[in-house]
Amino acid sequence: MIIDCHGHYTTAPTGLQAYRDAQIAALTDPSRAPSGGAAISDDEIRESLENAQLKLQRERGTDVTIFSPRASAMAHHIGDAATSRDWSRQCNDLIHRVCRLYPDNFVGVCQLPQSPGVPPSTCIAELERSVTELGFIGCNLNPDPSGGHWTAPPLTDRAWYPLYEKMVELDVPAMVHVSSSCNPNFHATGAHYINADTTAFMQFLTADLFKDFPALRFIIPHGGGAVPYHWGRYRGLAQDMKRPPLGELIRHNVFFDTCVYHQAGIELLLKIVPADNILFGSEMVGAVRGVDPETGHYFDDTKRYLDNIRSVSDADRVKIFEGNARKVYPRINRALASGSGESRWVG
Amino acid sequence: MIIDCHGHYTTAPTGLQAYRDAQIAALTDPSRAPSGGAAISDDEIRESLENAQLKLQRERGTDVTIFSPRASAMAHHIGDAATSRDWSRQCNDLIHRVCRLYPDNFVGVCQLPQSPGVPPSTCIAELERSVTELGFIGCNLNPDPSGGHWTAPPLTDRAWYPLYEKMVELDVPAMVHVSSSCNPNFHATGAHYINADTTAFMQFLTADLFKDFPALRFIIPHGGGAVPYHWGRYRGLAQDMKRPPLGELIRHNVFFDTCVYHQAGIELLLKIVPADNILFGSEMVGAVRGVDPETGHYFDDTKRYLDNIRSVSDADRVKIFEGNARKVYPRINRALASGSGESRWVG
Repeated sequence: MIIDCHGHYTTAPTGLQAYRDAQIAALTDPSRAPSGGAAISDDEIRESLENAQLKLQRERGTDVTIFSPRASAMAHHIGDAATSRDWSRQCNDLIHRVCRLYPDNFVGVCQLPQSPGVPPSTCIAELERSVTELGFIGCNLNPDPSGGHWTAPPLTDRAWYPLYEKMVELDVPAMVHVSSSCNPNFHATGAHYINADTTAFMQFLTADLFKDFPALRFIIPHGGGAVPYHWGRYRGLAQDMKRPPLGELIRHNVFFDTCVYHQAGIELLLKIVPADNILFGSEMVGAVRGVDPETGHYFDDTKRYLDNIRSVSDADRVKIFEGNARKVYPRINRALASGSGESRWVG
Repeated sequence: MIIDCHGHYTTAPTGLQAYRDAQIAALTDPSRAPSGGAAISDDEIRESLENAQLKLQRERGTDVTIFSPRASAMAHHIGDAATSRDWSRQCNDLIHRVCRLYPDNFVGVCQLPQSPGVPPSTCIAELERSVTELGFIGCNLNPDPSGGHWTAPPLTDRAWYPLYEKMVELDVPAMVHVSSSCNPNFHATGAHYINADTTAFMQFLTADLFKDFPALRFIIPHGGGAVPYHWGRYRGLAQDMKRPPLGELIRHNVFFDTCVYHQAGIELLLKIVPADNILFGSEMVGAVRGVDPETGHYFDDTKRYLDNIRSVSDADRVKIFEGNARKVYPRINRALASGSGESRWVG
């Protein structure tokens, strides 16, 4: 089985954006608040997926996508904690409907109702609802809810600990994933995303978070940002700072996906990072949508790059495509066995 | 000849820091202002270099270092524009003394007196002084003078244009280089530096700056941040945005150094980025000071990684080690011919 650990619902029906538009309009004109939830039919959901994610799963030969709301649309910097709470519920409920309609193809991961200046503990209720009621298996955690101003404390700060305690209790990991940028310096998918990945890794390197939470697990997406390319720099910095060797530091706690969109990049990743710490991912349909004229294939068809590398052992290949996802997101085992649905998770 | 395009005076005599400490103390207590410039003897300068940069040049077989004030100490976010002006002059004058003492080993690049919220045009006078009076051949340009809060406009904004006009007039490039971070999210050398590199590249990709300034040249240090590792992502984003192909976009304007501290990273860089756009650099003595236990050599001995790659043609090797530096920093030719010194540059 091939599990893609990184997919967002970037093709959601227009009813979702209509809800969001009304919600944003209501920030200045309460009369424009959305009445009820996003109006989306099951057929619209099917249509949004059949010619996109599902078609690409079939074409590329992948089986299941760990699926979450569109990352760039989380926009935690818009409105306040109540805005973020309502928006997160709409987005997560929609992912839940996707997982019910296609229980063999999608397993849910939730958006958290973060908000700048608000303690992360306010996200616990939605995390718990998503996992225990919707059958989700993880969350996306935004290290910068301000959207490019980086006003929150580092991920190793104790302000995050109550949320981490709940993650450990529920046995769910977080993918470290920022959203859109409202800072004109940072292009979202070209700079902000990659910077956040690099930043998070360095935060983990410099603190003892995993001594406090040995069972806490993070996925750093987009191939770990700049980290594998600068692995020597990070090994050297760790050594200069008397920190543990990187392999030891990340072993049970930090994982990289394979969202790197060219052969040489993926080769570097697999050469440098232990196979136990790599999860197959494509971010499909996501940041880069075109076909690479040099290969004739989609840039984000990351399975092809992996398939092209002969030096990976079969055992490592199974880990990267399936085993590590089952280890990092253990609730996926129950979700796939039971059809990913409903409130089987309560209690 | 082997030219190292990236060295900072990280080993400066303690008199420089004493000056800075007094300057910072004077921000709250004017009576503590430094009286006169930093008190440093020529012997102290010699001592600071003989067992560090000069020893390493000899050991590693490099010839000349393009040398600038310590990047992490620029700290443009401390004090105001006058603070930054005085501090930059001290730092640049010290680099000038280094270049006079060792005209065969060092060629100067200046720190700019940037300050948050102050127009970049205020840096023109010091740039002009450094180039025409001190014989410097380029500058370090900080895209984030706020030190990790990213409050300045992107490098493609017209606010920077007056400075760019002067750079073009003087025929000097800028290395895009942030300083220390006062944002606890960003470790300076492990996150802030690398993020700035990635950020600058994406800014260049999304705007028409080089249509406005065809002769403007930037070096993106630290191997281009995350860019070569994510080259496919950037090619795909450029294509989706109807921007020129990356090779074309960077050809005459954007260059990467080789400050990547492991073999696989350097191999990726040389495989992916055109040889015309790579300048040898080591950042020695800099961010990572230790010896790699896996190789027995210094992490930042980047020449070794390059020497280990057999697939680079001799012509490309000459470009990377020397030719490109002479092209990007053309004033280096006059500086090396004349002994890098004094006010030969006036007029």
